Amino acid sequence: MGNRGFASDNNAGVLPEVMQAIADANSGHAIAYGGDEYTREAEAALRRVFGEATQCYFVFNGTGANVVALQAMARSYEGVVCAATAHINVDECGAPEKLSGCKLIDVPTPDGKLSPELIAPVLHGFGFEHHVQPRVLSLTQASEMGTLYSIEELRALCAYAHERGLLVHMDGARLSNAAAALNCSLADISVKVGVDVLSLGATKNGLMFGEAVLVFNPELQGPLKYIRKQSTQLFSKMRFLSAQYTAFLKNELWRKSARHANQMAQLLAREVGAIKEVQLTQKVESNAVFALIPKEWIAPLQAAYFFYVWDENRSEVRWMTSFDTTEADIHEFVAQMRRIAELKG
Amino acid sequence: MGNRGFASDNNAGVLPEVMQAIADANSGHAIAYGGDEYTREAEAALRRVFGEATQCYFVFNGTGANVVALQAMARSYEGVVCAATAHINVDECGAPEKLSGCKLIDVPTPDGKLSPELIAPVLHGFGFEHHVQPRVLSLTQASEMGTLYSIEELRALCAYAHERGLLVHMDGARLSNAAAALNCSLADISVKVGVDVLSLGATKNGLMFGEAVLVFNPELQGPLKYIRKQSTQLFSKMRFLSAQYTAFLKNELWRKSARHANQMAQLLAREVGAIKEVQLTQKVESNAVFALIPKEWIAPLQAAYFFYVWDENRSEVRWMTSFDTTEADIHEFVAQMRRIAELKG
Amino acid sequence: MGNRGFASDNNAGVLPEVMQAIADANSGHAIAYGGDEYTREAEAALRRVFGEATQCYFVFNGTGANVVALQAMARSYEGVVCAATAHINVDECGAPEKLSGCKLIDVPTPDGKLSPELIAPVLHGFGFEHHVQPRVLSLTQASEMGTLYSIEELRALCAYAHERGLLVHMDGARLSNAAAALNCSLADISVKVGVDVLSLGATKNGLMFGEAVLVFNPELQGPLKYIRKQSTQLFSKMRFLSAQYTAFLKNELWRKSARHANQMAQLLAREVGAIKEVQLTQKVESNAVFALIPKEWIAPLQAAYFFYVWDENRSEVRWMTSFDTTEADIHEFVAQMRRIAELKG
Amino acid sequence: MGNRGFASDNNAGVLPEVMQAIADANSGHAIAYGGDEYTREAEAALRRVFGEATQCYFVFNGTGANVVALQAMARSYEGVVCAATAHINVDECGAPEKLSGCKLIDVPTPDGKLSPELIAPVLHGFGFEHHVQPRVLSLTQASEMGTLYSIEELRALCAYAHERGLLVHMDGARLSNAAAALNCSLADISVKVGVDVLSLGATKNGLMFGEAVLVFNPELQGPLKYIRKQSTQLFSKMRFLSAQYTAFLKNELWRKSARHANQMAQLLAREVGAIKEVQLTQKVESNAVFALIPKEWIAPLQAAYFFYVWDENRSEVRWMTSFDTTEADIHEFVAQMRRIAELKG
Repeated sequence: MGNRGFASDNNAGVLPEVMQAIADANSGHAIAYGGDEYTREAEAALRRVFGEATQCYFVFNGTGANVVALQAMARSYEGVVCAATAHINVDECGAPEKLSGCKLIDVPTPDGKLSPELIAPVLHGFGFEHHVQPRVLSLTQASEMGTLYSIEELRALCAYAHERGLLVHMDGARLSNAAAALNCSLADISVKVGVDVLSLGATKNGLMFGEAVLVFNPELQGPLKYIRKQSTQLFSKMRFLSAQYTAFLKNELWRKSARHANQMAQLLAREVGAIKEVQLTQKVESNAVFALIPKEWIAPLQAAYFFYVWDENRSEVRWMTSFDTTEADIHEFVAQMRRIAELKG
Repeated sequence: MGNRGFASDNNAGVLPEVMQAIADANSGHAIAYGGDEYTREAEAALRRVFGEATQCYFVFNGTGANVVALQAMARSYEGVVCAATAHINVDECGAPEKLSGCKLIDVPTPDGKLSPELIAPVLHGFGFEHHVQPRVLSLTQASEMGTLYSIEELRALCAYAHERGLLVHMDGARLSNAAAALNCSLADISVKVGVDVLSLGATKNGLMFGEAVLVFNPELQGPLKYIRKQSTQLFSKMRFLSAQYTAFLKNELWRKSARHANQMAQLLAREVGAIKEVQLTQKVESNAVFALIPKEWIAPLQAAYFFYVWDENRSEVRWMTSFDTTEADIHEFVAQMRRIAELKG
Repeated sequence: MGNRGFASDNNAGVLPEVMQAIADANSGHAIAYGGDEYTREAEAALRRVFGEATQCYFVFNGTGANVVALQAMARSYEGVVCAATAHINVDECGAPEKLSGCKLIDVPTPDGKLSPELIAPVLHGFGFEHHVQPRVLSLTQASEMGTLYSIEELRALCAYAHERGLLVHMDGARLSNAAAALNCSLADISVKVGVDVLSLGATKNGLMFGEAVLVFNPELQGPLKYIRKQSTQLFSKMRFLSAQYTAFLKNELWRKSARHANQMAQLLAREVGAIKEVQLTQKVESNAVFALIPKEWIAPLQAAYFFYVWDENRSEVRWMTSFDTTEADIHEFVAQMRRIAELKG
Repeated sequence: MGNRGFASDNNAGVLPEVMQAIADANSGHAIAYGGDEYTREAEAALRRVFGEATQCYFVFNGTGANVVALQAMARSYEGVVCAATAHINVDECGAPEKLSGCKLIDVPTPDGKLSPELIAPVLHGFGFEHHVQPRVLSLTQASEMGTLYSIEELRALCAYAHERGLLVHMDGARLSNAAAALNCSLADISVKVGVDVLSLGATKNGLMFGEAVLVFNPELQGPLKYIRKQSTQLFSKMRFLSAQYTAFLKNELWRKSARHANQMAQLLAREVGAIKEVQLTQKVESNAVFALIPKEWIAPLQAAYFFYVWDENRSEVRWMTSFDTTEADIHEFVAQMRRIAELKG
């Protein structure tokens, strides 16, 4: 019980349908490194969603997906524009710089979302050899702050980037949460708005492991398989990853799972929002809730339900919901918070 | 059926005990990135085998284990001495050079095994800044050719290396096959002979995925966790990896599994060795069989049971057995070979 | 004539004393790569200035000095805190990230100078493997904005960094301008305040080429010679670099040369400051003058005396003086500006 | 006197014409980083020699030239085939691996020269993602052993490489010695035989410093300027490098200088060849002499004239001549050897 909580959607387990698919794949031999039927099937499923021209490269995790994608998009003297809060900028221990050699050009944002106005000031120095050349715009959907880009915002950003010679990368670690919230398809907020390469995440939404680098821009498709291997991200017994994706996409399991997580975030936001000492700091649009709470509440609350402090100075905390969050989890958590409020008040 | 065969121990599936452990781990929440009880348990099991001073870092795969290990052992201006056939030298698409920056100093060997005599000629240039500084000796046990270092050979090599200021890395992707064949413990051929850092593999012997970097040399233990993360090798839902290791070590499941694979290789060697056109090229000491066969046999034989040609010029092929190879597999394969022999003869 | 101007101190030539030293070094043979008497002499001269424990590594240029220094101070999973305007951050085309693998953690400043208050917010995440570990504080003296750290400010910053486990790097491309302005020794604002590694520049102050990486912290001295070589920064005919340093240090030639450049900047600032449309934007403390000027003046003024626009949006320009700037240069430049003012006014 | 000798052509000084050109360039201001007239003039001179389509990038030194060239030719998952004795393989402290990420695929040779037969065995694994993809063939002319490729050999090698999808890099650190010996133009043994990118050296033949990366293949020309800057190889006061090249090319100063060095090597070879205990081990085709000499001669001979032992086991030594070697140097050296022979005999 002590481990349930709102620390991270990575703390959740595996969807039963996905676990079943893994067990089913454990039958006989299969050609290693992706030369198997399970992988063909998963790729076909991804192509039905994202378009027949999509190239699919399964990798182990989100950091792996991002560094493989960025290496396919930029040379080491080029730069990657991203939000200051982006996972590639703050949560990957410098893996993007290490593996791609690229500088990350990070842009502060109020809500984790970039806009043409925000990125315009860093798009300069083109052709000037002393400066890193801006080459990739990396967007995160849903953002690290749980906020969402609308389809129109994404289309405008991709057009803006392309007009200036930049490619667009999307970190879609929570793309399914975004699509569920926006009530659209996964393609509607990626390939269809102009994204060139997508890091499609699924682990945070109920897979055991495995992300997919999806390359929509045909000019970038050549070297991916070598980059994946050299980046240590090629899985030998690939069928056990591919089978998860097939299950994840079947009957839009991803949507059901993400929608539930999103709804739980809405419920949590409503419940904690009703406590007068708690102040939400970001729009709750996917499965994250950010809030300011009294500093002295944090430790006793964490003792019951572990979660991360986002900004210690402001006493801002982050709560994540997941596919297996229950209404009971939320009611108990809020009850605990109310007990602490009373005690401390 | 068409997929059964001797192409690779990576083509096999997952041991039932391991699959059960994975399913059992899917219960409730667990702290991500290794902060969970499953990981504590697996680490404790590894420490019981390798010694209490061992530091354990789980990673996704063998290439990941090797590059994490090498980065912990050498700076970019240092060199890694290895057999020319070593996995790090020929099967990782340059990942060691890319991530560590180090030069691999590869030494041709007749049987995949290094010796003091073989490495002596490349241990020079110490202190000369124009030359890469030899710093790591990387040994593979069992070797890529299926051969084994004896305990005495390993002890002598480690001593030789340490006396010259080199650290010893062991690529133990098939360490359990070696220990089963040598009838010794995993520690007997790693930490106890002087290995500093071990890439302990288990995927080829029945895990779904997951290797462990084990650091025995206390001077090297500081930065591993950062190196692992920056090398894209930190798994979020770590419990599903750790649980496999606990199952793998319990009652020496690894030994039972590896011994079977080794025995199947012996059987295969005996059977094919009895065919007069077939000539074994390496001692069969673990789960690999290398042989010269008539060139015109290869295609029809591969059609029935896929396998890899090791050296096209010599018509040398490699056959790997695994925990799930059956005697029937071997008898059918050999029967097929005899049919082809008749047809072609 | 058209080339004279205030674009960069790199546009100036070579001090006559330095050119003579180069010519004098061209006599007979000398052991290559620094094994010569000229290098011994230059190192001795540097040690007299910076202390006998100083290790000296000559390199070709400032970017080379910085990347060699940073590689000696940090591993790839560590971070380098610097001003957003720092040369390593904006003028080296990502060389620090490429060669060290490190993330640059850049901090916006009003005047190119860091302070404990400014860097405190980025010094977090220690021990947390998802985050780059802050390890180096890189200070630029004189700063890119021509401003200076006082001795007290430097001492406080070094102490602040060391208390938090960070090492201090100083980019001293214009250290001699700073020392001349502060009327102190080169050691007073580097080794004596706690700097661990110094990139000592001299090219901008009258050398033909050549910078020196000076390592004061004895724990960092081991691998420098290999790092220098591997970073392509080891010069074969070293005597022609070393001889320049000996001349540069002799009778404090550097101070005379830097003081002149600084005085010319003062004169330029006074003269342009008297023009009512011109507004200085930074304190003029070394050999740089930053000013806002009417946008329409820029092109015609550049046509006569080329210089760089620092911030196009604000119409902010940068003028650099050098050892060979003359009062006549300044008076002609200002006269030209007044002619344009009249024309445009 | 003690420093004269045959250790390295890098121990020689600077040609008087080159030194004069440097002095002449020290006049007034010049735009930094290559935007000056001296650089335009040198580039024009290089284009007259190598063809109007040549792109020219001046860098500091040979290691810099090679790593810039290789980065322009290969991605990190690609491999560079070279002779085991190549400078990039043994004398650059791993800079090529570090900066390009590429594996060097080194091929043993009897005389420093590659051939289609020698490289054929390593040209495999194309399209197989586990293997580094062979992409560059790097030839050294004159080779590290002082031997030369004929024009026909070069043409055949380039054709062989191109047919297999490889690009050809030439390390021309001693290209002028080769052209002088073959009595041909510099273009005859580079651009005209099919070389894609040339590292043109001149330092070993009388420049103070400075090499040129010449890009003949138009498909490779885009990113060089960024690669050069990011590789720390962009010189600020470029005019002092460019002016040397103009002098070097004027009236084929390079040929006169190289021819002299070559002739001195011939004389040295004849003289030492006449000593019965000395056995030449390589054809003397440029400015290097390799020989076996009695082990006990080495120390006393080095005491008088320092030189390097090439292979300690075989007691093989290397003697280099240079533009400033005199007949007297050789006669004194040989006399000294004869004295030692008598003493030891």
